[in-house]
Amino acid sequence: MNSENFSISEKIVSPSYIRQGSQARRSHEQLIRLLLEQGKCPEEGWSESTIELFLNELAVMDSNNFLGNCGVGEREGRVASSLVARRHYRLIHGIGRSGDIAAIQPKATGSSLLNKLTNSVVLDILKLSGVRSVASCFVVPMATGMSLTLCFLTLRHKRPKGRYIIWPRIDQKSCFKAMITAGFEPVVVENILEGDELRTDMEAVERKVQELGAENILCVHSTTSCFAPRVPDRLEELATMSAKYDIPHVVNNAYGVQSSKCMHLIQQGARVGRIDAFVQSLDKNFMVPVGGAIIAGFNESFIQEISRMYPGRASASPSLDVLITLLTLGASGYRKLLAEQKEMYTYLAQELKRLAAAHGERLLHTPHNPISLGKIQRTQPHITGHVSGWPPDTEQQVCDSTGLHAVHQAGVWGQGGCPW
Amino acid sequence: MNSENFSISEKIVSPSYIRQGSQARRSHEQLIRLLLEQGKCPEEGWSESTIELFLNELAVMDSNNFLGNCGVGEREGRVASSLVARRHYRLIHGIGRSGDIAAIQPKATGSSLLNKLTNSVVLDILKLSGVRSVASCFVVPMATGMSLTLCFLTLRHKRPKGRYIIWPRIDQKSCFKAMITAGFEPVVVENILEGDELRTDMEAVERKVQELGAENILCVHSTTSCFAPRVPDRLEELATMSAKYDIPHVVNNAYGVQSSKCMHLIQQGARVGRIDAFVQSLDKNFMVPVGGAIIAGFNESFIQEISRMYPGRASASPSLDVLITLLTLGASGYRKLLAEQKEMYTYLAQELKRLAAAHGERLLHTPHNPISLGKIQRTQPHITGHVSGWPPDTEQQVCDSTGLHAVHQAGVWGQGGCPW
Amino acid sequence: MNSENFSISEKIVSPSYIRQGSQARRSHEQLIRLLLEQGKCPEEGWSESTIELFLNELAVMDSNNFLGNCGVGEREGRVASSLVARRHYRLIHGIGRSGDIAAIQPKATGSSLLNKLTNSVVLDILKLSGVRSVASCFVVPMATGMSLTLCFLTLRHKRPKGRYIIWPRIDQKSCFKAMITAGFEPVVVENILEGDELRTDMEAVERKVQELGAENILCVHSTTSCFAPRVPDRLEELATMSAKYDIPHVVNNAYGVQSSKCMHLIQQGARVGRIDAFVQSLDKNFMVPVGGAIIAGFNESFIQEISRMYPGRASASPSLDVLITLLTLGASGYRKLLAEQKEMYTYLAQELKRLAAAHGERLLHTPHNPISLGKIQRTQPHITGHVSGWPPDTEQQVCDSTGLHAVHQAGVWGQGGCPW
Amino acid sequence: MNSENFSISEKIVSPSYIRQGSQARRSHEQLIRLLLEQGKCPEEGWSESTIELFLNELAVMDSNNFLGNCGVGEREGRVASSLVARRHYRLIHGIGRSGDIAAIQPKATGSSLLNKLTNSVVLDILKLSGVRSVASCFVVPMATGMSLTLCFLTLRHKRPKGRYIIWPRIDQKSCFKAMITAGFEPVVVENILEGDELRTDMEAVERKVQELGAENILCVHSTTSCFAPRVPDRLEELATMSAKYDIPHVVNNAYGVQSSKCMHLIQQGARVGRIDAFVQSLDKNFMVPVGGAIIAGFNESFIQEISRMYPGRASASPSLDVLITLLTLGASGYRKLLAEQKEMYTYLAQELKRLAAAHGERLLHTPHNPISLGKIQRTQPHITGHVSGWPPDTEQQVCDSTGLHAVHQAGVWGQGGCPW
Repeated sequence: MNSENFSISEKIVSPSYIRQGSQARRSHEQLIRLLLEQGKCPEEGWSESTIELFLNELAVMDSNNFLGNCGVGEREGRVASSLVARRHYRLIHGIGRSGDIAAIQPKATGSSLLNKLTNSVVLDILKLSGVRSVASCFVVPMATGMSLTLCFLTLRHKRPKGRYIIWPRIDQKSCFKAMITAGFEPVVVENILEGDELRTDMEAVERKVQELGAENILCVHSTTSCFAPRVPDRLEELATMSAKYDIPHVVNNAYGVQSSKCMHLIQQGARVGRIDAFVQSLDKNFMVPVGGAIIAGFNESFIQEISRMYPGRASASPSLDVLITLLTLGASGYRKLLAEQKEMYTYLAQELKRLAAAHGERLLHTPHNPISLGKIQRTQPHITGHVSGWPPDTEQQVCDSTGLHAVHQAGVWGQGGCPW
Repeated sequence: MNSENFSISEKIVSPSYIRQGSQARRSHEQLIRLLLEQGKCPEEGWSESTIELFLNELAVMDSNNFLGNCGVGEREGRVASSLVARRHYRLIHGIGRSGDIAAIQPKATGSSLLNKLTNSVVLDILKLSGVRSVASCFVVPMATGMSLTLCFLTLRHKRPKGRYIIWPRIDQKSCFKAMITAGFEPVVVENILEGDELRTDMEAVERKVQELGAENILCVHSTTSCFAPRVPDRLEELATMSAKYDIPHVVNNAYGVQSSKCMHLIQQGARVGRIDAFVQSLDKNFMVPVGGAIIAGFNESFIQEISRMYPGRASASPSLDVLITLLTLGASGYRKLLAEQKEMYTYLAQELKRLAAAHGERLLHTPHNPISLGKIQRTQPHITGHVSGWPPDTEQQVCDSTGLHAVHQAGVWGQGGCPW
Repeated sequence: MNSENFSISEKIVSPSYIRQGSQARRSHEQLIRLLLEQGKCPEEGWSESTIELFLNELAVMDSNNFLGNCGVGEREGRVASSLVARRHYRLIHGIGRSGDIAAIQPKATGSSLLNKLTNSVVLDILKLSGVRSVASCFVVPMATGMSLTLCFLTLRHKRPKGRYIIWPRIDQKSCFKAMITAGFEPVVVENILEGDELRTDMEAVERKVQELGAENILCVHSTTSCFAPRVPDRLEELATMSAKYDIPHVVNNAYGVQSSKCMHLIQQGARVGRIDAFVQSLDKNFMVPVGGAIIAGFNESFIQEISRMYPGRASASPSLDVLITLLTLGASGYRKLLAEQKEMYTYLAQELKRLAAAHGERLLHTPHNPISLGKIQRTQPHITGHVSGWPPDTEQQVCDSTGLHAVHQAGVWGQGGCPW
Repeated sequence: MNSENFSISEKIVSPSYIRQGSQARRSHEQLIRLLLEQGKCPEEGWSESTIELFLNELAVMDSNNFLGNCGVGEREGRVASSLVARRHYRLIHGIGRSGDIAAIQPKATGSSLLNKLTNSVVLDILKLSGVRSVASCFVVPMATGMSLTLCFLTLRHKRPKGRYIIWPRIDQKSCFKAMITAGFEPVVVENILEGDELRTDMEAVERKVQELGAENILCVHSTTSCFAPRVPDRLEELATMSAKYDIPHVVNNAYGVQSSKCMHLIQQGARVGRIDAFVQSLDKNFMVPVGGAIIAGFNESFIQEISRMYPGRASASPSLDVLITLLTLGASGYRKLLAEQKEMYTYLAQELKRLAAAHGERLLHTPHNPISLGKIQRTQPHITGHVSGWPPDTEQQVCDSTGLHAVHQAGVWGQGGCPW
């Protein structure tokens, strides 16, 4: 209520109580003010009542909720079902305009604020999680794979001759399809076995670049989060090489935000070399429903170019989910989850080691992979890490060929992702 | 959001859009202002978004929703289940204080406002429905019967010698039990048959008063809404007699608010004679869940006395329901329902007449009953309206004794109430 | 979904997945089965999804939710506002019938089940909390005070000559008004000071009984939960005396369920003597919104008599709240809260002692009061525990007259209740 | 509840009432059965209680809601915020798998059913709305523009030489960007002015095809719904030509489902010639929040190819919205909206004509456009319908160049879409 209404209320309930109530309201307003001013994830999580108050305030600013408004035109945010209206807090207009998914909608001031704040809060969390120098990001209501596709499609306009994408192998279907869908030819570079770990074969990568010619390569497409025995790519080396040959570099960081190691790799890569964009899933990193991703980078104008490639307005649903979640957790709540994840990982590794030993198996030593663990039968002479032939005939083949059975880590996070 | 937050928002989304959003918010505030200022049911119903905004504003003013508040004492409005908190819009403190169900709670400014406004809006609707001179009323979270009990218990303190309650017979259990529970002796006065109608036997009533002695009579307990062939009591005559003998008069108007005839009777009774309180059900008259009633009267201080008799705080749930409902309907929506009810009644009477004729039955001619209709077999020699012997051995007996089968009226309202 | 629908679903999604889904559903059904079979609070709390599934199932059984149903009669559970319908899970019919608040409603099978189960689960919790031999109880949608009134009104019919209620003094308004409202004369018996504690003066009580004559006494009205320096009444002695003189005995156990000591006193009182009913608040003991109470006792038929005194149907809202809450907590969750309360009490006492010492004050030694603590200025010569003159002119007077400032206990529970 | 639980309930509440409740439940089950069996939009809309019951049933089948389930792996559907969980009805897993957005997820049987049923119900509505021979469709959580992009990217794999997209001009940014984003070169073919209408210049289109060579053309990209004075493209002729030259044909039917004329054009085009896919917006046609589209076609395997191009799982939110909405409206409710739209259009045209006349303007005669209306100043010598130069320097320029001010149609639908 505004001050006028508080004054009138003093005639109904005693002024001192109303003042107390008005101050209480003010403390919610203060939280909202801080959010608007700083655009950062609040240190302490908000109560549900503050969150719902805030969302109601945003909704009231959208034209579909204007009282007495009779929209004759288009884009009126009409909703037939009250169940649907309610579950979206009456924020119906989606985000963005035809021109740009990050643009402001004249008819939807509240939704526009929601969109801007979400991107800003998410940027803050990316910094907090280790990529201190990230310059810009936006939430897109598409899965990681489709978001990678959007990045590749944007690069096409900058590299008209680019046909190939250099891709250190990772056995995950979406990111492979992301390249195919965008219309490019993935150039799979096999990893090499170092100890138990499958790591980026930098020599092979550079050989491929020289062989195909830098100008014919759309970009390097590297990966952080993955299943053991594969470990995150050597991002520093890949970034350095990308800079050297002036090739764009896109990182698939699908479930890497929750791992300080993955985030550190990205930060380092950007510091010493070239990373144009890194893409992460919303559901895996922020415990929201499936269907959104964050596209982030170190050059604001390139990230804007990507956001301008999305043709049309888009669903605000993933943005709404991640904003509610981060306001609920607060930065401290998110850091706490990150710490728990590390603890759980260590505990799991230790227990798995014991379990494996009891069954004549051995836990693979993959210290560079902060997310996933694998084990192997002792009787097997050696691990054949180099798996050839893409795509495999069946899912089973590839999994078996390494003689490994991945064990995904327990904990608050979904770190895995079945290889297929 | 307050003006400060709107200003900050202008740096995020263009100022002109924010101003538009701020104006939109203001139009909700204006509705709330009118409600606070006038305490009347708004002419036009509010949208769900205004209602929820308003309830959120109220909740924020209750101390259980104060941010950073750590209540050490009692009455902190603690809630274990978030499902429960949410369904009450986080308004947890109930209404009233130990001293008075209508009193303001220091820890619950929002709930107190809710309570005051509900009573005020309901008073407005009682006026609109025909009792123009009603002076005061309050919603009580008890059924009609228990609310009548509370009225009788209040009267006890004013009439220490009162033992009897004069009660023109109505075959409904709750109102009978209301007197028994309060510890009084109901003096059942049989009705007389006029044409097809069972009407108050004024002579018999007055005879009883003289016989028992006015000072030994706690009150007259009359009834408006009832099943045919009974019709509403002769309120004017009963009120006149009550005034003459200086006996309090309590009217059971259970489902009478939705009938202009019942309300007119009460208005007339109060004009020419004495009516101390009239009690009506929330669910039947306002289409809310079962469990609340309105106690109303023409003398503010007596109604306050009743509200002060309720020991302890009380559930705000029925108040919340009726406030939401009236804000949703608006005065115009409520009037529309009243008009529909009349139309439906006429239609039902006409169709029942035809149906009865087709089955060798006859619709009873009960023009004084605006709510219920009855029919009778033509072969039956005459209606035995005078049923003696209370209480009946079984429910069935009484119903059969009149030889009638009540047909309750169709329509938007639940007007009936099975005789038992 | 029923088995038929699961079968059909197997044509849409693979049978093995559907079977898994069907088994998952079955595990929810199992929880519901246990609840229905045993009528006990589940050991482990239910998830929100099980609770909402269950409430939806109940709602579907109420006639207002019958598909294609066009209710012509009364009591159709019509609801004008969808906000209202939803917040009650479409359970609109309330509980009970005119005849009995515990009765089954033909038109509301789901609400009737809800009512029966709630009473059964609450009975289980009363046992778990220490009153092992409790025979019957029911939730009533009225505050503790009004519920006490209902008990007294019921006793009137059994004790027509009873005019007085013997009441060891407790400075709380509602329970005093409960007697006044019911139309009885409270006979206040002052407590005596033992050390720092104000305790029941058994001699004075018995003297009063003899003086007034047992047959003129409606009942003894004792209290467990209270503020220091008063401690719970000597229930064993009072119960023994009640048995000796054949006087009913009603215990005000307002916020005593959460205290094993209070519950133990009741159990012991009933074992060695006579306790007819004990009444407790829902909000203080179960962390639900204000407005409900539990009336319990050791003789099923007497408790039924009370439930039959409530005239009319009643709000199901408090029953719904307490059922949701207990299903959410589970018996283990409730026990955990009880344990926490004890811990917090000890911690608070210890810290208050230190704080008092630092300010020249002294924590009162009131070991019989497991809920509240008080402190006193050392400079004050002695505590004047005997406060005479009822009712006090102002609230402040009585509080000051003891020279005490009660400090309510911190913790998860609201144990206090301001003396007024 | 299952039959076992109903049996147990008979011991608590009388068997006959339980049977009634069980039958009531069965009537909801019957509605669900029909939906599962036929996969069609129910003729009559469902009540909110049936819809929520059904969604709860689906949610229970998803593994994140399995009781006692402790997911160690990935994709566990973990949700940090209960606000978020609830607004998605605890359906967290999204839809599809990495392989295919239409695929079944092993961990999410309920979400998979939801996805399949939504696509099936939407297919039914497309048929009902006029495209009787549509073979397959799927809902995709992306705007119309991005969905067109996905169609073009799919065609790339079938037409490796295709560089150009033939596009009869329409001044709307998203569909233009859809081609650019996909990496193709839009070949804009200007429309010709026939009377007041801007219509497809078939000669110019065919000339372009011959000029560029059919094999170099990825597809023809036509449009139905548009602003006056443009009218829907000559779909029959375009489809015939596409068939003749063996060029794929994709139709942008953004807000055309609600217009029987647009749907008829598509049906006819497919009958006489070639239409590979037609794409429509969810929000404009189904009154749901922004962010989803339907990709439909006449060849099931091609539509599957498109659905397999989406890399990764996707948000279920738009599918959930459209399913709730169509179940709420029912086929009859949807037909009623279609009929209202036609009525409103006629009314608007008539009133606008009068208004225009009063201001020295003239309503354009555009009978082929069933959605939008335009007017022109009489003083202006002639309409310059041929607008050259793409893209325009500013939005304003293009709008002005036609000398028209489009007036969007009033009504229940948002048919417009500002030209930009």
